[in-house]
Amino acid sequence: MNNYETRDNVAKTTAQSPYLFSRKDENHQTTIPIGNTVVGGDKVLFFAGPCSVESRQQIMDIAYELKEAGATALRGGAFKPRTSPYSFQGHEEKALEWLCEVREKTGLAIVTEIMDPQLVPVFEQYVDILQIGSRNMQNFVLLKAVGKSKLPVLLKRGMSSTIHEFLLAAEYVLSQGNPNVILCERGIRTFENATRNTFDINAIPVLREKTHLPIIADPSHGTGNAKYVLAVSRGAVAAGADGLLVEVHFSPDDALSDGDQSIQPQEFRLLVEQINSIAHAVNRTI
Amino acid sequence: MNNYETRDNVAKTTAQSPYLFSRKDENHQTTIPIGNTVVGGDKVLFFAGPCSVESRQQIMDIAYELKEAGATALRGGAFKPRTSPYSFQGHEEKALEWLCEVREKTGLAIVTEIMDPQLVPVFEQYVDILQIGSRNMQNFVLLKAVGKSKLPVLLKRGMSSTIHEFLLAAEYVLSQGNPNVILCERGIRTFENATRNTFDINAIPVLREKTHLPIIADPSHGTGNAKYVLAVSRGAVAAGADGLLVEVHFSPDDALSDGDQSIQPQEFRLLVEQINSIAHAVNRTI
Amino acid sequence: MNNYETRDNVAKTTAQSPYLFSRKDENHQTTIPIGNTVVGGDKVLFFAGPCSVESRQQIMDIAYELKEAGATALRGGAFKPRTSPYSFQGHEEKALEWLCEVREKTGLAIVTEIMDPQLVPVFEQYVDILQIGSRNMQNFVLLKAVGKSKLPVLLKRGMSSTIHEFLLAAEYVLSQGNPNVILCERGIRTFENATRNTFDINAIPVLREKTHLPIIADPSHGTGNAKYVLAVSRGAVAAGADGLLVEVHFSPDDALSDGDQSIQPQEFRLLVEQINSIAHAVNRTI
Amino acid sequence: MNNYETRDNVAKTTAQSPYLFSRKDENHQTTIPIGNTVVGGDKVLFFAGPCSVESRQQIMDIAYELKEAGATALRGGAFKPRTSPYSFQGHEEKALEWLCEVREKTGLAIVTEIMDPQLVPVFEQYVDILQIGSRNMQNFVLLKAVGKSKLPVLLKRGMSSTIHEFLLAAEYVLSQGNPNVILCERGIRTFENATRNTFDINAIPVLREKTHLPIIADPSHGTGNAKYVLAVSRGAVAAGADGLLVEVHFSPDDALSDGDQSIQPQEFRLLVEQINSIAHAVNRTI
Repeated sequence: MNNYETRDNVAKTTAQSPYLFSRKDENHQTTIPIGNTVVGGDKVLFFAGPCSVESRQQIMDIAYELKEAGATALRGGAFKPRTSPYSFQGHEEKALEWLCEVREKTGLAIVTEIMDPQLVPVFEQYVDILQIGSRNMQNFVLLKAVGKSKLPVLLKRGMSSTIHEFLLAAEYVLSQGNPNVILCERGIRTFENATRNTFDINAIPVLREKTHLPIIADPSHGTGNAKYVLAVSRGAVAAGADGLLVEVHFSPDDALSDGDQSIQPQEFRLLVEQINSIAHAVNRTI
Repeated sequence: MNNYETRDNVAKTTAQSPYLFSRKDENHQTTIPIGNTVVGGDKVLFFAGPCSVESRQQIMDIAYELKEAGATALRGGAFKPRTSPYSFQGHEEKALEWLCEVREKTGLAIVTEIMDPQLVPVFEQYVDILQIGSRNMQNFVLLKAVGKSKLPVLLKRGMSSTIHEFLLAAEYVLSQGNPNVILCERGIRTFENATRNTFDINAIPVLREKTHLPIIADPSHGTGNAKYVLAVSRGAVAAGADGLLVEVHFSPDDALSDGDQSIQPQEFRLLVEQINSIAHAVNRTI
Repeated sequence: MNNYETRDNVAKTTAQSPYLFSRKDENHQTTIPIGNTVVGGDKVLFFAGPCSVESRQQIMDIAYELKEAGATALRGGAFKPRTSPYSFQGHEEKALEWLCEVREKTGLAIVTEIMDPQLVPVFEQYVDILQIGSRNMQNFVLLKAVGKSKLPVLLKRGMSSTIHEFLLAAEYVLSQGNPNVILCERGIRTFENATRNTFDINAIPVLREKTHLPIIADPSHGTGNAKYVLAVSRGAVAAGADGLLVEVHFSPDDALSDGDQSIQPQEFRLLVEQINSIAHAVNRTI
Repeated sequence: MNNYETRDNVAKTTAQSPYLFSRKDENHQTTIPIGNTVVGGDKVLFFAGPCSVESRQQIMDIAYELKEAGATALRGGAFKPRTSPYSFQGHEEKALEWLCEVREKTGLAIVTEIMDPQLVPVFEQYVDILQIGSRNMQNFVLLKAVGKSKLPVLLKRGMSSTIHEFLLAAEYVLSQGNPNVILCERGIRTFENATRNTFDINAIPVLREKTHLPIIADPSHGTGNAKYVLAVSRGAVAAGADGLLVEVHFSPDDALSDGDQSIQPQEFRLLVEQINSIAHAVNRTI
């Protein structure tokens, strides 16, 4: 017995009528253009950057570092979903402008989180990839809105969403006509308290079996601790991840959010080097 | 160590600067008008109805039954958040009209779920209480939107939200100027698979200690099984709940959603009778 | 799909070949003699006492208090299962002697935890009920050993055991010829960190449906916090529990173990009074 | 706040008075002899075999296959802990004799689970490594008994044990004088139901930081599904595991236990090959 909401969907899972996310055969694999490369192909990509865009100077400086180290895309929060209404909520549209400037100067693709369905047209002016955060994985109004955009969507798994629910959230986007969904495993909530979340490495082969969509891993949220980011990054790519989403900050202790889990630029360079070795061991490149 | 996002909030939890949700002393208790009574006072209230508004006739018929049995408010979904995009999504605005008609004819207060922040003005024309569902407990754009409404908000706990996160979600609403938030414990996601969710009865005394807001219980989602709804309802009220949110359907096997957990009208009458006994045992009435 | 180990058992769950724990019909209910009463009948029983037997004087003094307040059985740990090998491990056989003396002087039945299968004959000399702790719920060697004893067994649910696994652990005892198993729901491990465990109130009606064995509740471990013990006790009895297992200590702050969750004797008297009201509301007595 | 039992242990975690399991510095690493090699050194080891020893012929045949493919140790259950008392419980002492014969003929080291503390002397006659299963991780009587043995102990993490509790269980063994404990991460119980357990890859770097004991991974129980074993094996070794414990069976569909998660010998050969590449990528060998 599966206790979660699935009864209505049974009809959809037959071979004759698969979901849009369903993998038809072993070679069925979606690739999505990011900058001058693709995610979902042979290359393992790096999406890196600070949790929040804290200032124009910060985001510009870190972008040059990350570009040089091998990143394809810059991540950075403009609108921040925070548990408390009194926590820093992001620099909002001003941060979008800075991110856009970074893109022009460095050539990095820009990925940033959208929370308000009405802001899709605004984001489309500034960024390359719309991120849906874990707290909004089942915000169906938002999923439908980004499903009508032309931009790729980076969909993060909900903190306690099953893999099946995760795929059905992707289906909401796909069903609106947007075929470009990148799935991101970022750790689930469990009883373990030595780490912020439990990175679900099983999800990588399970998703690979069930869907043709690209799969990336977020070891920063997956562990919540910079000390464990390298090991889990290696593990995720060895298990088959198409890329990594990593929080990097010049001075993690001073970060306005998520400092504990942010690595520094020199650690990011080491990570890229180690992932290069792992990628080759699984017949890929970076 | 608490692994969840709390660092920024520490300053807010001092005695000098409590949260808006914080209980100042034992007698600090918010009551919120519902129909011709209040929630949060001596009376234990019943919010009952079908998962989805399926037709004008269905909702009208069940409303009369529930009113007569002792319900104060009618619940019924007009816009339904469904895991799959291909499941029944609700009759939407037409269902709101039917609910409004029910209110006029029966005097029942109407509670229904809102998912789209832009629809607040529409809902305000038709209903009495705005429900925020579990999947949207941390949809901060939506929380801020209902925080600007004059209507009371029934906030359901997220499936894997801590009690602290639940209270901070309420704070988002309160901080926008709307003081009328009703908290609803509806079960959390655990490893147990004999029930759909695990009703967290501990949450009732924990919330009572920490907040002055009214607390109701949803034994339908809390168990996912009609057979267990009566027992858990008695338990919730004995532990201190201010009311119950119960799914009732004439013919659960034919329900368009959540049939397994819906009780029938005659079972609802038995439930009201049993809760009457429990309420008196804890010095309350129905 | 159920991911836990159940395939081999399917044959056993048919109507023709039920488990020994299976309830045959509504009136099928086991009662087990405890002192001069029974558990599983109309009366709600109280099993109370300190986490550990700390001294002869302590256990004698608290026993008289609890007896007078209405307890039927005294609980107290002689051999303590502790997470760390360096924590207080109990006064062991000396504590068993003190417990035996308490029984003679007060008439209270004695329940205490056994961890070593070889000690069954020793425990049989001193105590009335053999407790199997949560950590040993699937210690099958121990379950088989107590299954060969004449004494009733109080079996606590494992911290992350499903209800089905809990019942199969009881089956291990029953299958050895001992029909007297008392099931104890004591909270499960979840992500919530405001309480030590999440008391699974759903388990009470689920167990009632599936088995004829008596069911008691442990609100002390179920919450881990003395402040919440009264409310959860009321909830458990309202939901149908046949008794309560409660930690009581004269001076919780000085307790050698589990002080946070121990209530004081005067609070225990208030609890008995409140449970009396709840018991009557569900057509039972204390 | 940490809700689990840790208060008594605080004094033990200071730098002056570390636990026996505590890593003193980066180079502090225990190696334990297994066959003609060691676990915890540069080599990644393979512990492989069927869930249960089903017959003399079965275990002999598979042993030769595994030896040739690169395994160092043979795993196989003689005494099986089963959720139901009516499931196959193993061939017990007869299986120990078969395992001993396998050791003599193949040179493979033998690892098998012990459940009864009294049987330590019997196991010592036949096997090389005493396995403590997940259900007995906090069976302190058993931990103390194997702590007095001269044989290495392979300790599996409990299904819902925190990493801290896991290490304290190891401390029970170490504190009795047995320094040779191999820790085994085998997945934890979560809400996810696409896999039997959630393999906790985070545990590998967390354990590496906190302890000098060798760490191996069990991808068979960690996923519960043969299809995902290869990917998770690669991930575990990339993250730093010192070895793998893998279930292998000639005919998984006919296995008396755990068939779903058993791979076949030819898949095991492919796994060894892939792990060879990963091992080199992290500067190790097989």
